[in-house]
Amino acid sequence: MNKLYIANKVYSSWSLRPWVLMKQLLMKFDEVVVPFGEGSNWAAFRQFSPTGKVPCLHTDQGVVWDSLSIAEYLAEKNHRVWPNDTMARAWARCAAAEMHSGFATLRSQCPMNCVIEVKLDQISSQLQADLNRLQELWREGLSRFGGPFLAGAEFTAVDAFFCPVAFRVQTYGLPLDEPCQAYVQRLLSLPAMQLWREQALQEPWREEAHEQACLAAGTLRRDHRTPQA
Amino acid sequence: MNKLYIANKVYSSWSLRPWVLMKQLLMKFDEVVVPFGEGSNWAAFRQFSPTGKVPCLHTDQGVVWDSLSIAEYLAEKNHRVWPNDTMARAWARCAAAEMHSGFATLRSQCPMNCVIEVKLDQISSQLQADLNRLQELWREGLSRFGGPFLAGAEFTAVDAFFCPVAFRVQTYGLPLDEPCQAYVQRLLSLPAMQLWREQALQEPWREEAHEQACLAAGTLRRDHRTPQA
Repeated sequence: MNKLYIANKVYSSWSLRPWVLMKQLLMKFDEVVVPFGEGSNWAAFRQFSPTGKVPCLHTDQGVVWDSLSIAEYLAEKNHRVWPNDTMARAWARCAAAEMHSGFATLRSQCPMNCVIEVKLDQISSQLQADLNRLQELWREGLSRFGGPFLAGAEFTAVDAFFCPVAFRVQTYGLPLDEPCQAYVQRLLSLPAMQLWREQALQEPWREEAHEQACLAAGTLRRDHRTPQA
Repeated sequence: MNKLYIANKVYSSWSLRPWVLMKQLLMKFDEVVVPFGEGSNWAAFRQFSPTGKVPCLHTDQGVVWDSLSIAEYLAEKNHRVWPNDTMARAWARCAAAEMHSGFATLRSQCPMNCVIEVKLDQISSQLQADLNRLQELWREGLSRFGGPFLAGAEFTAVDAFFCPVAFRVQTYGLPLDEPCQAYVQRLLSLPAMQLWREQALQEPWREEAHEQACLAAGTLRRDHRTPQA
C-alpha cells in the first residue's frame, strides 16, 4: 500500500496536491501527517523525505519525493491522472508545471490556510499580475477543452495542482472573473476537498509562524476553528 | 518540424535543458533565439510564449511552454527521454522536478554564464546547503543506477536538467567531491554541450544586468569571448 507523508492540512499546499488527486480518483493509500512545528523541521522531515520536504510518497518500489513526479508515477498506474487526448495532456502538464515553479507572489503573499478568512489590505501589482495570468490560463483550459474541469470533463492532476489556489481564493477573497470563480467553487465542492478541510478543522496544532504569515498582508475576518483551550 | 524558442545561449539555463536533450538524443528541431534584451521582455516573449518566458516549444499540434512538460511531451514520442526502468524513471523525474522548483540559492547566487570564469568571494552557508543536497542527489543516482549518467548508462532528461549546473560549476569553480566533478566533466564533454558553448561564444549580445548578476558575488577571472568592437 502506498504511504503518503504530508504536513498540517491547515497549511500544507504542496501536500494537498497528491492527496486530493489520489482521494478524488479513489486510489487507496495510507497517510501520515507530520506537523511542521516551529522552526526548522528539515532534520525531522529528512527521516522520511530526501529533500526534507513534503509531500513524499513511499511505495513498495521506493520513494517518490516531488509532487509533480508523484503525479507522473501514479499516471503510469492509472490512466485517469492525466487527460487522454495528447494535447490536452500536454496542456495539463504545462499548467501544472507552471504552478510547480511559478506564481511566486500568489504563494508568498497568500499562504494557504484553509480554515480562516482574511481581508487583504490591498492587491499588490505583482499579485494582480499573478491573478491575471491565472485567470488567462484557467479560461483557456475551460474554454478549449470544454470544462467543467481545466482539461475537460474529468478531474485530473492539473486540477489537483490548483486546489490550493481554490483555498487561497476563498481565504483571501481574491477577485476573479465569473468563469474562474465558478471553477473555484467546483473545486471547493469536491468531496475530497471538503474532507481535507474537515480534517484540517480538527487538527490540534497551530504554528505561529504560519498563522502570522497568513495575516502579514491583511486582517483576520473569521477563524472557523473552535477556540483552543 | 518542432520549433524551440530560446533566449541567449550565454545566460539562459532554462533554454538549455530541452535544447541539450533534443540535440543529444538527435531529435530534429528548428531553433529561434530571442535575446533577453535589457529591462522587461515579457511583452516581446508573450508573442510566442504564453508565460512570457523561455523555453517554449511550438509543435504541429500546439504550444508546450514549460521545460519539464516539454520533456514529457517528447517522452511520449521517444522512449529514450526517460530511463526504461520504472523506479529509475521515477527517480529521474523526482530529481528533475527538484531542480525545476528548487536549488534557489544556487540559481540566484550563481546565474548561468557559460563563457566567463568567476572567483566567488565565499561560499555562503545557503549555497553550501544547496551544494550538499546536489552532491547527495548525484551520488545517489550515480551509485544506485550504475552511471555514468544520473539514472544509468544513457543520457536522459534528468541529465539535461542538470546541464546548466555543470556550466555553473565550471564558471564559479564550485567545490564538489570527485564523483560529482567527474560527472560535471562528463556533461561538459557532451557534443551537444560543446556546441551550445561554441554558439554562445559567437553571440553578439551582452546584457548588462545579466553580466552584473554573475559578478555580484565574486570577481571576473576570465572572459572567453573576443572583446567587443
